[in-house]
Amino acid sequence: MEPRLKNLDHLFHPRSVAFVGATESMGKWGFIIFNNLISGGYEGALYPVNPGRESVLGFKAYPTVRDIPGEVDLAVFTVPARQVVAAIPDCVAKGVKAGVVISAGFKEMGGEFADLEAEMVAKARAGGMVLVGPNGQGICCPASKLFPWMPNFYPPDGKMGLVSQSGNVQNILLEGVVKSGFGVSKAVSSGNEADLRAEDFYAYFAEDPSVEVIVSYLEGIADGRRFLEIARAAAAKKPVIVYKAGRTLSGFSAARSHTGAMAVSDQLFDSVCKQAGLIRVHDINEAGIIATSFLHRPLPRGRRVGILTGGGGLGVIAADLCSDLQLQVPALSPETLNQIGKLMPNWWVPGNPVDLVAGLNFQSVMPIMEILMKSGGVDSVMPLFIGPPRLKGTEAPVKHPQAVEFSKVWKGMTQMWGAFAKILFSMMQQVQVPVYLVSNFGDEREIDLGSIMGDNSITIHPTIESACQTIRAMADYFEYQGALREERPGKPGRISLLENTAAIRKPE
Amino acid sequence: MEPRLKNLDHLFHPRSVAFVGATESMGKWGFIIFNNLISGGYEGALYPVNPGRESVLGFKAYPTVRDIPGEVDLAVFTVPARQVVAAIPDCVAKGVKAGVVISAGFKEMGGEFADLEAEMVAKARAGGMVLVGPNGQGICCPASKLFPWMPNFYPPDGKMGLVSQSGNVQNILLEGVVKSGFGVSKAVSSGNEADLRAEDFYAYFAEDPSVEVIVSYLEGIADGRRFLEIARAAAAKKPVIVYKAGRTLSGFSAARSHTGAMAVSDQLFDSVCKQAGLIRVHDINEAGIIATSFLHRPLPRGRRVGILTGGGGLGVIAADLCSDLQLQVPALSPETLNQIGKLMPNWWVPGNPVDLVAGLNFQSVMPIMEILMKSGGVDSVMPLFIGPPRLKGTEAPVKHPQAVEFSKVWKGMTQMWGAFAKILFSMMQQVQVPVYLVSNFGDEREIDLGSIMGDNSITIHPTIESACQTIRAMADYFEYQGALREERPGKPGRISLLENTAAIRKPE
Repeated sequence: MEPRLKNLDHLFHPRSVAFVGATESMGKWGFIIFNNLISGGYEGALYPVNPGRESVLGFKAYPTVRDIPGEVDLAVFTVPARQVVAAIPDCVAKGVKAGVVISAGFKEMGGEFADLEAEMVAKARAGGMVLVGPNGQGICCPASKLFPWMPNFYPPDGKMGLVSQSGNVQNILLEGVVKSGFGVSKAVSSGNEADLRAEDFYAYFAEDPSVEVIVSYLEGIADGRRFLEIARAAAAKKPVIVYKAGRTLSGFSAARSHTGAMAVSDQLFDSVCKQAGLIRVHDINEAGIIATSFLHRPLPRGRRVGILTGGGGLGVIAADLCSDLQLQVPALSPETLNQIGKLMPNWWVPGNPVDLVAGLNFQSVMPIMEILMKSGGVDSVMPLFIGPPRLKGTEAPVKHPQAVEFSKVWKGMTQMWGAFAKILFSMMQQVQVPVYLVSNFGDEREIDLGSIMGDNSITIHPTIESACQTIRAMADYFEYQGALREERPGKPGRISLLENTAAIRKPE
Repeated sequence: MEPRLKNLDHLFHPRSVAFVGATESMGKWGFIIFNNLISGGYEGALYPVNPGRESVLGFKAYPTVRDIPGEVDLAVFTVPARQVVAAIPDCVAKGVKAGVVISAGFKEMGGEFADLEAEMVAKARAGGMVLVGPNGQGICCPASKLFPWMPNFYPPDGKMGLVSQSGNVQNILLEGVVKSGFGVSKAVSSGNEADLRAEDFYAYFAEDPSVEVIVSYLEGIADGRRFLEIARAAAAKKPVIVYKAGRTLSGFSAARSHTGAMAVSDQLFDSVCKQAGLIRVHDINEAGIIATSFLHRPLPRGRRVGILTGGGGLGVIAADLCSDLQLQVPALSPETLNQIGKLMPNWWVPGNPVDLVAGLNFQSVMPIMEILMKSGGVDSVMPLFIGPPRLKGTEAPVKHPQAVEFSKVWKGMTQMWGAFAKILFSMMQQVQVPVYLVSNFGDEREIDLGSIMGDNSITIHPTIESACQTIRAMADYFEYQGALREERPGKPGRISLLENTAAIRKPE
């Protein structure tokens, strides 16, 4: 890790924050973000910088950063571009270690605005200050109660390090994680990446003990060789999940006007991922869920999947999707089928997928899952929609005096599912075969399986696609780790393809 | 439509129902489904048939169907396979017009059980009775308050006709529809399709004025030629959306043990879809949403998409996904960009996607959307995540005395979104350019955009993928309709490929 990245400690855990552009004009970024920052409960010293005001939302304001009495670790900027550049020397003079530049109007506008961006970076670097942005939405670090960012949204603390070249995409990723019952350690909307780039955060997160998995959204890569080297070192330590946009001509054009990104040939980027051991995902809605799956779950030691299904059609769809992703749905041994058969009604048709046959007692599900996990015939188990709880608002239209209202039954199930999650968690550790539960979940359900499972450190997948993509990603990572172990202690031998990294940068 | 399909009127709107196997033993299908039927509020006469009981859940029981005093339109069966076959002659004698066979243990078990199924069908057909199933989960028709099916789930009435070769897949489809604020006219879990097949329901739904769009999940096709002819006639009248599973070797093996389905080459099935004008979808989670999109929305007259985005990264992802699906993201005319530019801040970078730039006032969204719709430069408009409401449970951790709590602002937004939906709906009708809103929605949000939009007959898409797939499906349908119009009044000219339909059936 480059020595200057030590400044990121101040970025994520500042003792004090200067907010250049804090205001009480609702609708302005300087209001929204300052408001979010104080609502997040930040406990360090907070200094609004605004020459036109005595105070902002109850905090004493200062005309410039130089006028602040105490020390300042972090500065946040929401003023127009030229004023950001003008404020940097003040920050440097004050000993500010890190800045978050929210303001837009830099390189993405081209021409003189790109020059302005270069000037800002030069001044900051000369003064030993690192910068996030510009043209991002900010950062968050829940452990520090630090939320200097655009969204009025406060994810809980977790074990994921996130860096995104788009703020809105970051929000979607984080929402997926939160809905699954997980949180985030640090999230960074890196914007134009004028100074700090995605790979710098890979390097920092790789050394950060509170981060166990790294996730990122990328549109462009400024220096392919640097990216590859740093990403490779990070991926050797922790899983690094990447979604890359701007793959197509239309997408690339959009990316250029978004963050001024340079095009990267998609095929070449794919090869970078393979060489660096990055886990590339192709569905932005799944990226967060795939990441949480790496927490607390053993890796599958191969591509053989045992499918357990609450309904035949779902098993058929799952078998198709496994095939699409080069996962196998192997035949089970006669012994395994025989063991399972003892727990099944007489109209059961033996096979993989194991069709649990509608109406099977829930008590049999865990024993059947255990047989599969211990069979030696599969590397992972995927149970589909076993007992999904009903969608709210679709209850019986009439209360027939003689009928049984099942929602009462379901309310009692919360405890049962909690117990199930605990057994499942310990069995995964014991047998070292991962289980990928697929089910509907969320607040719109009579019971929220996502929360119950998340509380027990188990990720639940909303779709079969999600589970299959996750199994594939984790099986790939297991293989990569194995290759890495074999490769050591010799020299790294995979970096040859990109000796001349100019190849992965197309000139604009 | 074959004359015997007139019996489906009795299936969906029976004046009376006999339930062969109704019981009070909780956990048995004969209990669950009878319980669902009475809880659904069915208002016709209900006759439990159970020789061991005087009454079931308060309804007088009869030893056999023959013993029922009044007329019977529909019989539901949950007794073991042999008893179903034995009860058919009683039904025929009683003049029952339609049967729903829930019971499993027929053709999917092979051998003698397949013979049993054939015997059942022969008896029913000879007696002028049509059968749904066996090995399905039942049917529903909300307008008749008729829910003789497995799930304890009551979708509202709607304009969709649904037939599925898997009950659980049907449930997932329906949940997607209900979450989008829509309902279903009739849903059929067709099981092994011993008598009535998916295409019979296409034919019936095509003539049914309460159905405006047809959706189906298929694993196998018993008679390719018949399927093609009937499907083609139906698709000429209404959109028919199809998801086909069992595409791969693993998937096909699973399908065979599920419903005894025969394999269909996937390439050949694709060509059947093209010839018949079926809309094939590849994501089961989207099938229901794609279907609702055909209701109340004009078709796009081409493949040019105008993207409006609340954040740059989302626009990049959307442009990529459009390209993947052969949709175009055209450059907008200088005139259009100029019109939009007048409503944008000075750091806006003109282009398509139109990046609304964070912080833009919501009041400008509708005017910009209108400019795009009326520009003549695009055939559809896709606005991405404009003002998505916050996920519950991620509110500010502290209530800072000076801070503004945004959830208050959001609560006031319900009305604003309702007004927006109404304007949008009427503008789509007026300009004849469809709009595909993408946003997070659901009960887990501070405001549920899905309900607000659904109440105003607008489908909202949960993901960019969903919207892109829908635009593609509707653009394809528009093209097919155009081709159909040109083709008439001549003879149908597309049926040649399958003259020998043996080709689409592989022997087992």
